[in-house]
Amino acid sequence: MSEDKSQKLETMRHSASHVMAEAVQSLYPGAKFGIGPAIEDGFYYDFELPRPLAVEDLPAIEMKMKEIIAADLPFVSEEKEALKLFADQKYKTELIKDLGEEKVTVYRQGGFTDLCRGPHVKKTGEIKAFKLTSVAGAYWRGDEKRPMLQRIYGVAFAKQGDLDEYLKRIAEAAKRDHRKLGKELDLFSLHEDAGPGLVYWHPKGATVRQLIEDFWKAEHRRRGYDIVYSPHIAKVHLWETSGHWNFYRENMYSPMEIDDIQYVLKPMNCPFHILMYKTQLRSYRNLPMRYAELGTVYRYERSGVLHGLARVRGFTQDDAHIFCRPDQIEAEIKDVVELAQFMMKSFGFEEYEMMLSTRPEKAVGSTESWDMATGALRNVLEKLKIKFQVDPGEGVFYGPKIDVKLKDAIGRLWQGPTIQVDFQMPERFDVNYVGEDGQEHQSVMIHRTVLGSMERFFACLTEHYAGAFPVWLAPIQAVVIPIADRHNAYATEVFEQLRASDMRVQLDDRSERMNMKIRDAQLAKIPYMLIAGDKEVENSTVSVRLRNGEDLGSVEISAFMERVDSLVKSKELSKL
Amino acid sequence: MSEDKSQKLETMRHSASHVMAEAVQSLYPGAKFGIGPAIEDGFYYDFELPRPLAVEDLPAIEMKMKEIIAADLPFVSEEKEALKLFADQKYKTELIKDLGEEKVTVYRQGGFTDLCRGPHVKKTGEIKAFKLTSVAGAYWRGDEKRPMLQRIYGVAFAKQGDLDEYLKRIAEAAKRDHRKLGKELDLFSLHEDAGPGLVYWHPKGATVRQLIEDFWKAEHRRRGYDIVYSPHIAKVHLWETSGHWNFYRENMYSPMEIDDIQYVLKPMNCPFHILMYKTQLRSYRNLPMRYAELGTVYRYERSGVLHGLARVRGFTQDDAHIFCRPDQIEAEIKDVVELAQFMMKSFGFEEYEMMLSTRPEKAVGSTESWDMATGALRNVLEKLKIKFQVDPGEGVFYGPKIDVKLKDAIGRLWQGPTIQVDFQMPERFDVNYVGEDGQEHQSVMIHRTVLGSMERFFACLTEHYAGAFPVWLAPIQAVVIPIADRHNAYATEVFEQLRASDMRVQLDDRSERMNMKIRDAQLAKIPYMLIAGDKEVENSTVSVRLRNGEDLGSVEISAFMERVDSLVKSKELSKL
Repeated sequence: MSEDKSQKLETMRHSASHVMAEAVQSLYPGAKFGIGPAIEDGFYYDFELPRPLAVEDLPAIEMKMKEIIAADLPFVSEEKEALKLFADQKYKTELIKDLGEEKVTVYRQGGFTDLCRGPHVKKTGEIKAFKLTSVAGAYWRGDEKRPMLQRIYGVAFAKQGDLDEYLKRIAEAAKRDHRKLGKELDLFSLHEDAGPGLVYWHPKGATVRQLIEDFWKAEHRRRGYDIVYSPHIAKVHLWETSGHWNFYRENMYSPMEIDDIQYVLKPMNCPFHILMYKTQLRSYRNLPMRYAELGTVYRYERSGVLHGLARVRGFTQDDAHIFCRPDQIEAEIKDVVELAQFMMKSFGFEEYEMMLSTRPEKAVGSTESWDMATGALRNVLEKLKIKFQVDPGEGVFYGPKIDVKLKDAIGRLWQGPTIQVDFQMPERFDVNYVGEDGQEHQSVMIHRTVLGSMERFFACLTEHYAGAFPVWLAPIQAVVIPIADRHNAYATEVFEQLRASDMRVQLDDRSERMNMKIRDAQLAKIPYMLIAGDKEVENSTVSVRLRNGEDLGSVEISAFMERVDSLVKSKELSKL
Repeated sequence: MSEDKSQKLETMRHSASHVMAEAVQSLYPGAKFGIGPAIEDGFYYDFELPRPLAVEDLPAIEMKMKEIIAADLPFVSEEKEALKLFADQKYKTELIKDLGEEKVTVYRQGGFTDLCRGPHVKKTGEIKAFKLTSVAGAYWRGDEKRPMLQRIYGVAFAKQGDLDEYLKRIAEAAKRDHRKLGKELDLFSLHEDAGPGLVYWHPKGATVRQLIEDFWKAEHRRRGYDIVYSPHIAKVHLWETSGHWNFYRENMYSPMEIDDIQYVLKPMNCPFHILMYKTQLRSYRNLPMRYAELGTVYRYERSGVLHGLARVRGFTQDDAHIFCRPDQIEAEIKDVVELAQFMMKSFGFEEYEMMLSTRPEKAVGSTESWDMATGALRNVLEKLKIKFQVDPGEGVFYGPKIDVKLKDAIGRLWQGPTIQVDFQMPERFDVNYVGEDGQEHQSVMIHRTVLGSMERFFACLTEHYAGAFPVWLAPIQAVVIPIADRHNAYATEVFEQLRASDMRVQLDDRSERMNMKIRDAQLAKIPYMLIAGDKEVENSTVSVRLRNGEDLGSVEISAFMERVDSLVKSKELSKL
């Protein structure tokens, strides 16, 4: 979209929020108004209302909005003594006081006036296709200690076709929502009561995770990584040395006290790998050394931003730290980028975006070393002819990074791998190697993940496949379904035979109708339904029905096993 | 040993501690005396001395002790006004005050009098073979806030042969000490600075751990367990419900505060598995359900009792919780006992002792349910004809248990698997299933490990094999050693070929003499040294030398690969 078009759309969305506020004002007299900005795809407005709203209340508001739009009222901008004008609006009053100006700009359409810098459309009639989508609680100014307001979200587009397209996309996304599928497919749970943002992986989700982890470990070993394990806590002192305590503290958990010494849960694995590196004198001939760990870290996130497995408080990074010489940096980054590409492709992500994030405001280290590190990352991307965007100031406090965003099956972007070059941590911890010259030199560290975290990657994978995982990853690969009770013995035999070959298989010998069992297997997104009736018993076969509805007809057990085995071995992603 | 003999030995050891105290008194005037009991194999005494002692000081003390023994002085028991007698002995004074009696029993031999109830040998001459073994710091009364005294340890036996035998065993144990081997073989490290009792698994130790874990997981899947993952923290509230906060708190870490709510690191995995179980209504047909997790827990231990990997603060239990119906308890316990036996045998532990631990003083639940649970454990042991001892009061607060102690290669016992039956946790958390009658019934939980913890089991395994791990577990299975530089190219080829077959192999192409390389490989306890010289290059073979010194002569690469492959597949423990 051109910048002009996108600016126009944003203005229209902002105006829609004012129209919504006017509608709310007329439907809920006494409403207090918070703020109402345009956001991606639409707008929202925060209200304090006499009663809690539900989605059922939205059509009435929409109706009222349509009246206001049909009336084609002009948006009028004025300079006003705002404190007087908004005397009965406590949230507006607070905002005005913060502005510290006597006269402020307000916008008025019809009977509604809002504190607002604009711009707006000329008349309400310019607001085209819109829809109110949801209502949610939102703390005033995002502060959990302030009142909880009600936020109504809406979307708005230049034409009905765009809105329809958007709503279709949203409906598809909702069907794929990993929080919904997580429950339906019994993959994982979260327990607010025991602590928000902490993930419980149920057997089926854990099976997928383990398959990913095993694949990840084997691939890392093959590429010269060593796998290690480190603890989940360390003395605060260690985080002071690393700089986390000063530069990353708002993301860290609060400390606990043991024997009068403060400890804290690890938000990162790096200092632990440094301690291991430093247990011996390392020579230039030992480098690069690559420590990989599926390391579970804990980072504080405000409870309001937590989202299923995609944004959590405890997560397992597929982490590694490469200790290398300066002359090895580029080759190592190149290998990591290629490994990340390989991993993404292995799981079916063919498209992604790369961002180069540079020095943030709060950072350690000299401009020189930042330039060197940023240069190394940029060089590799350019040499590999990878398109990338620069994200200024979005690096980590100890170094710049490449962030990779995976594009899923319906075009959404997910935060994936990250590659960070770091000269600072080695300096702070005195991480050295003995060079060919017999002198000590400072090592360079590359921090990296090639999936991101198990939690987020699994959320992304679940939505990418809408829960219908490829055969090699499916928690249950096949279900054996006897047509009637008299086929149970044979079905059990088949089940045992497949299980003995390490296939993940279930037997559905409930006294239910076959159609019901097939429907349940379909809902569980199990790739293969193996139906056993008279003919199958007689011929020692099963009738194979695929998750996608296709029927393979009668298949011998050994042929079925070979089929699955070959798909698993090749890590086939789409074929069943 | 008969009880009488063992009583006699203990008395003699106690008397030896008095003799040592007398020797110290005469060598270090002004010494203040703590306590000096008999312990397993010997005795100790705690002193406050004018200067710190080292092992080099022990021979002089031994010499003096021998003089006192040669003098054959009588031990005389008297009733004394002790406060006056021990006026210049502050530690004794404290003890006497605690006794709260005016007159106390003292024992005197030669010029040394000690506050002591006895009994003692008649004369110092009865003290036979003894040796002082070490000196260490020990807090007065085990309290870290009181002064640190110096503790001298000694051993004493009825005859010289027993002492020699003992010293030989100790020397063997010292050679096998996993803390020593951990460093020499680069298996793991501990970092007091970052927090005592927290383990860092280096690549080689982590490789062994991973092989154990993979084996463990596959075996559990095969036996109908489901693998899950749970977080490391939960709100204190959850631990109040489980009873841990009341009955297990001294073993728990101190809480941390997040959003004004207290959280604590998990000391056990059970409540987490319960939360997962409770996400659905379970039917009698779903049971038993077996959740297995390699769950890392944190338990507070006083820093003084920490010991390498054998006693730590953070450790990974090979945990599982079985949810079952009351009629399934015995069958499940039997399966667990057999799984534990299978696991121990798989790793080379053929001998073990079983203990049945009963209700402790601090416990939850009715006597009835404790009796039922204890009965179930006892029944299984009896039916399986397993010998066991009863350990009264050593159960967990929620139930009785079977503890298994592994006997290692030199006869020492290690805490291994544990099996606990629990009616209490299900009651506290309302853990139910719908029975055949359509009514809700309370489930029973079995808590169990079949190795214990990864840390302690690995410590035990390391000492059992003295670091020379079986081929399937060896962190490095083979090292390729070119005799001279001109054999490097061929050696590299062999190395790459073996690596491609997923063998854990190293190439030692340093410019060192071959003997040096063989010596290093021997020290690293690598099973196979593959030597490549002129003849080997010519014939496309390697000359295979085993870790035990045996030479296999020239072997074709494919034959060597087959040999290793077959030993790995069969999980052979001794053959190379």
